[in-house]
Amino acid sequence: MNIALLGFGTVGRGVDAIIRDSVKDVQVTRILELPDRLTDPRMTASFDEIVADPAIDLVVECMGGLEPAHTFICAALDAGKAVVTSNKAVVAAHFAEFVEKANAAGVPFLIEASVGGGIPWIASIAKVRRIDEVTSFSGIMNGTTNYIIYAMREEGAEFDAVLAKAQELGYAERDPSADIDGIDVANKTIITASVAFDVACTRSLPVSGIRNLTKADLEVFAAHGRTVKLLGRGVCEDGRYAVSVEPVAVPLPSLEANVPTNFNLVTLDATTVGELKFYGQGAGMLPPGNASVQDIPDAPAGTRPVYDFSGSHEYAPELISGDYVFRCAVAPADSEPWDEGMWLVSGVTAEAARAFLDEALSTDPTAFMAALPQED
Amino acid sequence: MNIALLGFGTVGRGVDAIIRDSVKDVQVTRILELPDRLTDPRMTASFDEIVADPAIDLVVECMGGLEPAHTFICAALDAGKAVVTSNKAVVAAHFAEFVEKANAAGVPFLIEASVGGGIPWIASIAKVRRIDEVTSFSGIMNGTTNYIIYAMREEGAEFDAVLAKAQELGYAERDPSADIDGIDVANKTIITASVAFDVACTRSLPVSGIRNLTKADLEVFAAHGRTVKLLGRGVCEDGRYAVSVEPVAVPLPSLEANVPTNFNLVTLDATTVGELKFYGQGAGMLPPGNASVQDIPDAPAGTRPVYDFSGSHEYAPELISGDYVFRCAVAPADSEPWDEGMWLVSGVTAEAARAFLDEALSTDPTAFMAALPQED
Repeated sequence: MNIALLGFGTVGRGVDAIIRDSVKDVQVTRILELPDRLTDPRMTASFDEIVADPAIDLVVECMGGLEPAHTFICAALDAGKAVVTSNKAVVAAHFAEFVEKANAAGVPFLIEASVGGGIPWIASIAKVRRIDEVTSFSGIMNGTTNYIIYAMREEGAEFDAVLAKAQELGYAERDPSADIDGIDVANKTIITASVAFDVACTRSLPVSGIRNLTKADLEVFAAHGRTVKLLGRGVCEDGRYAVSVEPVAVPLPSLEANVPTNFNLVTLDATTVGELKFYGQGAGMLPPGNASVQDIPDAPAGTRPVYDFSGSHEYAPELISGDYVFRCAVAPADSEPWDEGMWLVSGVTAEAARAFLDEALSTDPTAFMAALPQED
Repeated sequence: MNIALLGFGTVGRGVDAIIRDSVKDVQVTRILELPDRLTDPRMTASFDEIVADPAIDLVVECMGGLEPAHTFICAALDAGKAVVTSNKAVVAAHFAEFVEKANAAGVPFLIEASVGGGIPWIASIAKVRRIDEVTSFSGIMNGTTNYIIYAMREEGAEFDAVLAKAQELGYAERDPSADIDGIDVANKTIITASVAFDVACTRSLPVSGIRNLTKADLEVFAAHGRTVKLLGRGVCEDGRYAVSVEPVAVPLPSLEANVPTNFNLVTLDATTVGELKFYGQGAGMLPPGNASVQDIPDAPAGTRPVYDFSGSHEYAPELISGDYVFRCAVAPADSEPWDEGMWLVSGVTAEAARAFLDEALSTDPTAFMAALPQED
């Protein structure tokens, strides 16, 4: 099998090295690079040349970002080439379009590496769905924020100090907002919901992050037998579904509460198999390219994941609702005191809770909110 | 695809029902039953009739036990039929022979349901191994013993009381020895090691169970920040490997310590993907047949798991060694006091520890032993 890499940054070089060292019967024969960086005989600056090359069976998109990744993925699928990508932003934004093109061409569109790093998460959902309905999922899908919360607890440190250290260690980007504001998790939640529920997932989900989480917040939650984790969640019931991204105050004896450092833990519930959980390192902590390469041996197998987004699931925010704790200067409407400077709002949707948080942030820019699920 | 079921007990009836209700393009057309129970037009008492029927593509073995399951699986593979089984005893005893026959016939031999119930454990190991080496695995592989230990802790109850309740609830067999003495976990450990390490795993592994675990033991370990879990383990290094089954005193903040009721949690470590963990209900707690049915859609896919046991891995007991705690009437040789009536033996292999336990049991039939891994 002949492969073309689109992009030759850290990920592209990693994919090239792993294929050379560890994958049989596969060669990287073309690499798309900028015109002033053509240092390898396999390199070209012309995507058209790659897409027109009948010897190329599979394209690995290693560029990141929305464009030109979106245009190149579409063109590769239209040309009948399998596509592998770990780019969750472009998949979340254009999943239905990519699937339509892949199905029309009868080629695999492989996205395992976009969620959960080395965890076989997308493959496991697809396997379960063959004989079962997925009714919900939830998970720690971002290693950076898990590392920050873990280190704040372990070291009794404040958010900013831990973030600075995470940036130094390479666990966090220089601009950390995609991680700490929940945007990265939102993309992974959209992709997971699409695969699990067979729906072209809406992008208007309620999203909040952990930017305002303090050491004192963690101490208060610990006194209540909880800690905070940033979770992406989805629920599907009777042709209706909802998704959310928000901090959740999980019970200390749960598996979620005990996930260390930068690991991910993702859970699905299905009607007959029950609860399944998957744990592993996020993509950022694997050797670069590893998460993408895991998909490559699936491309020539004759079977390909078939996603079907033709269903007409209704978005029903009330499917994710419960109690929420707010730490903010002014008590939210209809709240009751929960702890020093913190209030409990009971029985609201994730969407309504996000609106409460916006209101709170308008008077107190340090406000923080976490869902407070009932203990089993 | 036409399927024959061998056996029509609880599991066979479950497989039949799930296929009818949830699996497309698959029909159960023949069922092997005892001559006096042929109550369905699909039933026959003649295995020869089934194996000679060219319309049968796949055989699901639902009989359990070693014989005639072993003979029938061999004959079905020789006849070019795919085989699905959840029978870990027969797979552990005859894995290499089954694989040789499946490879010779070019048909799938599918055993996902034999380890970890609904967890995609065998599939995930196979997926990881395509681009990575598995260096170790360990796990809670038996739901019954996890339930017993969990209930002892939650209820502050003694082993016998909890076992009796588990038997009443159907979580434990009337003869519980396969579960509580570690035999079931030993079979699952043999199967996992064979798949993970590409080796026809030896059956002479050190095995000990939790029959002698007391409420007082759990309290002592809790005071040391630990709890006990029955783990199957394997390590592979430089063409050498070892396996063991034994109670392990895991740290309370670990994921393992927080696995509730009858759930399983299995872990693998691989050179580049790092640590992966998988959590779900053991086969015994799923709707009967569910764990076997998950394999069936893989049979016609053209790809089949290829196991290769031709390697010459050496069995090297020293790969699993460390510290062990013994609770027994007479202090073991070279031990030091650890707690009231308990002794620590440092730096011995699992095999040596099992020999120490045999020695202890000869003078104190209530003796208990657990490995004491160092905290990370």
